[in-house]
Amino acid sequence: MRNVIVTDTPRADIEKVDKLAEYGVATVHEALGRTGFLGPRLRPVHLGSRIGGTAVTVVSWPGDNLMIHAAVEQCRPGDVLVVTTTSPSTDGMFGELFATALQVRGVRGLITEAGVRDVTDLDAMGFPVWSAAVSAQGTVKATAGAVNVPVSIGGQQIRPGDAILADDDGVMVVPRADVDRGLERSQVRLEKEEATRAAFREGELGLDRYGLRAKLAELGVEYVTAEEYGL
Amino acid sequence: MRNVIVTDTPRADIEKVDKLAEYGVATVHEALGRTGFLGPRLRPVHLGSRIGGTAVTVVSWPGDNLMIHAAVEQCRPGDVLVVTTTSPSTDGMFGELFATALQVRGVRGLITEAGVRDVTDLDAMGFPVWSAAVSAQGTVKATAGAVNVPVSIGGQQIRPGDAILADDDGVMVVPRADVDRGLERSQVRLEKEEATRAAFREGELGLDRYGLRAKLAELGVEYVTAEEYGL
Amino acid sequence: MRNVIVTDTPRADIEKVDKLAEYGVATVHEALGRTGFLGPRLRPVHLGSRIGGTAVTVVSWPGDNLMIHAAVEQCRPGDVLVVTTTSPSTDGMFGELFATALQVRGVRGLITEAGVRDVTDLDAMGFPVWSAAVSAQGTVKATAGAVNVPVSIGGQQIRPGDAILADDDGVMVVPRADVDRGLERSQVRLEKEEATRAAFREGELGLDRYGLRAKLAELGVEYVTAEEYGL
Amino acid sequence: MRNVIVTDTPRADIEKVDKLAEYGVATVHEALGRTGFLGPRLRPVHLGSRIGGTAVTVVSWPGDNLMIHAAVEQCRPGDVLVVTTTSPSTDGMFGELFATALQVRGVRGLITEAGVRDVTDLDAMGFPVWSAAVSAQGTVKATAGAVNVPVSIGGQQIRPGDAILADDDGVMVVPRADVDRGLERSQVRLEKEEATRAAFREGELGLDRYGLRAKLAELGVEYVTAEEYGL
Amino acid sequence: MRNVIVTDTPRADIEKVDKLAEYGVATVHEALGRTGFLGPRLRPVHLGSRIGGTAVTVVSWPGDNLMIHAAVEQCRPGDVLVVTTTSPSTDGMFGELFATALQVRGVRGLITEAGVRDVTDLDAMGFPVWSAAVSAQGTVKATAGAVNVPVSIGGQQIRPGDAILADDDGVMVVPRADVDRGLERSQVRLEKEEATRAAFREGELGLDRYGLRAKLAELGVEYVTAEEYGL
Amino acid sequence: MRNVIVTDTPRADIEKVDKLAEYGVATVHEALGRTGFLGPRLRPVHLGSRIGGTAVTVVSWPGDNLMIHAAVEQCRPGDVLVVTTTSPSTDGMFGELFATALQVRGVRGLITEAGVRDVTDLDAMGFPVWSAAVSAQGTVKATAGAVNVPVSIGGQQIRPGDAILADDDGVMVVPRADVDRGLERSQVRLEKEEATRAAFREGELGLDRYGLRAKLAELGVEYVTAEEYGL
Repeated sequence: MRNVIVTDTPRADIEKVDKLAEYGVATVHEALGRTGFLGPRLRPVHLGSRIGGTAVTVVSWPGDNLMIHAAVEQCRPGDVLVVTTTSPSTDGMFGELFATALQVRGVRGLITEAGVRDVTDLDAMGFPVWSAAVSAQGTVKATAGAVNVPVSIGGQQIRPGDAILADDDGVMVVPRADVDRGLERSQVRLEKEEATRAAFREGELGLDRYGLRAKLAELGVEYVTAEEYGL
Repeated sequence: MRNVIVTDTPRADIEKVDKLAEYGVATVHEALGRTGFLGPRLRPVHLGSRIGGTAVTVVSWPGDNLMIHAAVEQCRPGDVLVVTTTSPSTDGMFGELFATALQVRGVRGLITEAGVRDVTDLDAMGFPVWSAAVSAQGTVKATAGAVNVPVSIGGQQIRPGDAILADDDGVMVVPRADVDRGLERSQVRLEKEEATRAAFREGELGLDRYGLRAKLAELGVEYVTAEEYGL
Repeated sequence: MRNVIVTDTPRADIEKVDKLAEYGVATVHEALGRTGFLGPRLRPVHLGSRIGGTAVTVVSWPGDNLMIHAAVEQCRPGDVLVVTTTSPSTDGMFGELFATALQVRGVRGLITEAGVRDVTDLDAMGFPVWSAAVSAQGTVKATAGAVNVPVSIGGQQIRPGDAILADDDGVMVVPRADVDRGLERSQVRLEKEEATRAAFREGELGLDRYGLRAKLAELGVEYVTAEEYGL
Repeated sequence: MRNVIVTDTPRADIEKVDKLAEYGVATVHEALGRTGFLGPRLRPVHLGSRIGGTAVTVVSWPGDNLMIHAAVEQCRPGDVLVVTTTSPSTDGMFGELFATALQVRGVRGLITEAGVRDVTDLDAMGFPVWSAAVSAQGTVKATAGAVNVPVSIGGQQIRPGDAILADDDGVMVVPRADVDRGLERSQVRLEKEEATRAAFREGELGLDRYGLRAKLAELGVEYVTAEEYGL
Repeated sequence: MRNVIVTDTPRADIEKVDKLAEYGVATVHEALGRTGFLGPRLRPVHLGSRIGGTAVTVVSWPGDNLMIHAAVEQCRPGDVLVVTTTSPSTDGMFGELFATALQVRGVRGLITEAGVRDVTDLDAMGFPVWSAAVSAQGTVKATAGAVNVPVSIGGQQIRPGDAILADDDGVMVVPRADVDRGLERSQVRLEKEEATRAAFREGELGLDRYGLRAKLAELGVEYVTAEEYGL
Repeated sequence: MRNVIVTDTPRADIEKVDKLAEYGVATVHEALGRTGFLGPRLRPVHLGSRIGGTAVTVVSWPGDNLMIHAAVEQCRPGDVLVVTTTSPSTDGMFGELFATALQVRGVRGLITEAGVRDVTDLDAMGFPVWSAAVSAQGTVKATAGAVNVPVSIGGQQIRPGDAILADDDGVMVVPRADVDRGLERSQVRLEKEEATRAAFREGELGLDRYGLRAKLAELGVEYVTAEEYGL
């Protein structure tokens, strides 16, 4: 990793990202072939938010938030800050003062695989965060890192300017080039889900709707009564 | 494990299970000799629900929800779906469409040692879930498993038709044969707890109420002042 | 560890502890040189409480709450109960009956690295708890331990009578001798944070406010455009 | 769980269990339809042992080894001791003195989801152990439990007298009734694996041997060159 | 992720990779600015191997090794197989038969964030593996994935053909373009370390050699005697 | 925590510490009332070492080894270096160069709750380490900490100069003031264990030797046959 702050990064079209966010993480993730989910470790501290935005990425040394300060300057309206550390850390690298600075710049929220603090204030401000930890443990400003370089969380690569979607199901990345495809396929999926929902409400079974009875038979799954099974 | 779907399983009497659920998991667990708790890993995504029901069990391959579709058909009013995987998994195997199909059939909720998704919708629908993870990660329908065979979670065996109780303290199983005993002993315990609560409110100490002063002495526990101890 | 119950322990001045608690855990932790945080494993079951109090400490055998009974008698108004176990445990060692007994004595809350139960009732009673687990699993009263001896959680030593502060950011200890210093420095920090907050609201950057541009240059962090970087 | 010590339990035929053990855990697990594995948490402290035996089961309170003493008396030549705890524990419940007592009785080894200690001595004695932890932390003898009741580890039920197989790949259970089937199918699998091994040594590919090229095509997996893919 | 098998991927020069591997993971990681380490979760099952090779990457569904079969065909002498899963999994996806097929093709070892099995055989064959788990749990061949697409482990991106280095300190990736730089800088570092080692053997202190006494003073670190500190 | 380096700390008598170490961690831990064990997370990278020594303690910032350099100068023959971090970290803070510098000074080994690297070299040098992780990830020298202040690992306080014992069962601390008592009681325990071992070899049961049959009866544990129990 070079110790750089990359400026003037291209970003996904924020209006399209906003539309995509409305579908929700689970739907878009399915629509895009079940890819892009950043894993179950990232959780909202308070449930109930749903955001979309364009990624500004940060690579920080553990226990050090110097590069987050550098990243604030690179943020524009519609961005989401995505903070990683060079090795696993639970420290509270981000709190209410950072959120204040970011809200002024129109940033929608924070995603981090490290920790956050001031969570009561963050909730009161309406600045949503998704993190792997909550920790009051503070950090220093002593070591170099990078801003707006590609990073990886949960096995998924995030490039600066990619779309980030986050809600109570977790966080996902949609590569900049896939936003249009995501919109199309999410709409298709939404409509399909609505039809399925209506059918399920009428009592139709997934076994029938998805043609799974044949699949079960093909896999050799047998029906037996409890008595036959010896229960 | 045979790849079977067991039908016509006997179930605990749902009216009795409902009564048992009202006592709460912690009380019934104590009443039955501190057994049946499925462990601290299973947590409600949203706090505030308390349910009881009869188990319909599922064994799924990790990353695969085929057998949950097969299980829906076996569900009746009063059931609780209990989903396990053949190896550890955090995938979001269950979401709002499944919950829609289950609510139509009168199912009370879901218990799983894997993950769930659409959690905002599940809460809005009033369909409670207890899981080890929340994850947007979707699953395929490709591999065989079983429905309504005995399963184990947290070291406790769950047989189809056993009573499942779940609230903010977690999830427990009461074997079908123990429901009556559970009701009796929970009532006894409830009354005992009420008497203790009243005594504690009056300032009585557990040391006296439970006769623990003698126990402490017998175990050689001594009283010393802070000064004597060197604090 | 001697099996003792230490009585008449000196305590931090509760009025000062109450004032300290108002600053919040993150602020006091920073004010005291980033020390005293008990780590990210201790979390409130329900968000939204903030307490301060003086520590009554307990060392229990795993799966055994005998010593908590002994500790209740040592509690006075303004205390916070701090429960540790001699080896890692998730058991629900503490529930609503203990909380009832402690509320009568004016205790403000519970901190434990093991588990709690009856969490719905605890919330309804307004008795806050911070723990590493929620578990219905009950405990016995069979093995000796200690009350009011020094204990360690998350690498921090807690002595009986030390100030304990807890809110949604977690739990911290302030040694009795550091309470005055904590008050002074927290007030200084609070004012500094307010000034910073006002500046950030005006759009000032941390880079400028904290003089970090020179730091970045000194560390060799370079600015490059996305095009130069090849994004 | 009743607090009982069950005597005169039937056991799998030890000669057949010994034969089964020779196939190794991975082979028998596959032969029996990929069932019975106790999960990746149980590991040998020292690599290089392979054992089979008949289960004597123990349920202990965490931090308490009373019931292991009771279990020793129930052990016979060919047994393997299987120790569980009523809640998660890492304590060193078992050490060299227990191993001495068990070796006298012809016991082959120990399986536990808690911890062990004296591991240098255990290795020197040739008494193999599989555990989830190594811990010098000792235990008391104060609380009741059970011997030779059904237990569950890693989602698998173990009944007294079932066959236990353990090697460097971990531990598995073969229900008493499945030992004969396990022997037959393991032999079939062994021969199949030998033929596959020979074919692989000749350079044949699994893609061809298992007919997977059609599967890949059916699933829509495409071949593209690195240049086409843009690498 | 597209379901593709990418062929004809460019690879780092294997002779250079072999030279790089001789420096060891810790040295090369330092030489390249402390980047590329795949994290502490990947461990060798048996200590004592050191390998280098060019990455052939696999993305598999959890519990499914279909794509590993597809990957074998893409392997050439000097390659290292790098297997990831679309969600966290501990299953034993890889064993001795795969290793046999890969050894025939000149592959140096396996890296996986899931599990391996047949570990006794793998060690006997001299086929080293680094994994996050050992598990006898077998897998199916039912679901699509990808071969030779970019993957991420431990926050580091691995592109097909990148250099993989692995020894007892863990696993790292060196991007194809950085191999030459890695060689140069590792040699510089090696020489510097040899000089430091010689100096340390003579009794020189790092405090003096690295000029850290001034640093400590600048950071306000004070020297006090134990008596002054109150020990 | 003050940023200090404490000099001239008193140490336990190294000859006595060496004698104590010979008893082994499990025996001394029992002899001292089951206290002082630093928990199951600290493990030797290579099995087979047993050391004793006097603690030189370090508090480091995560990802930063500056204070270890400062600590080297404080080390004397017979010391053991004990490294903690202000928040959880797995980084490889310690490697072969540090070990070289320490061996020159007669230091016996390293204990750390963070990570180590160069583990092959460390083993070859005969410099034993106990750590919570192995990681090639290197560290910077940028942030202040402390040397020779009291620290806590696994809930146990370690003061500079305390005795540290470590072997394959893990690591323990014996406070300086308890070394004599530890020697006496360990010898008593050793003799008791030898007598027990001899008795067990003769076939005596712990049930009889420790008088546990009465205990079982008192606790209501019943003997039932498998037939009676319904197995």
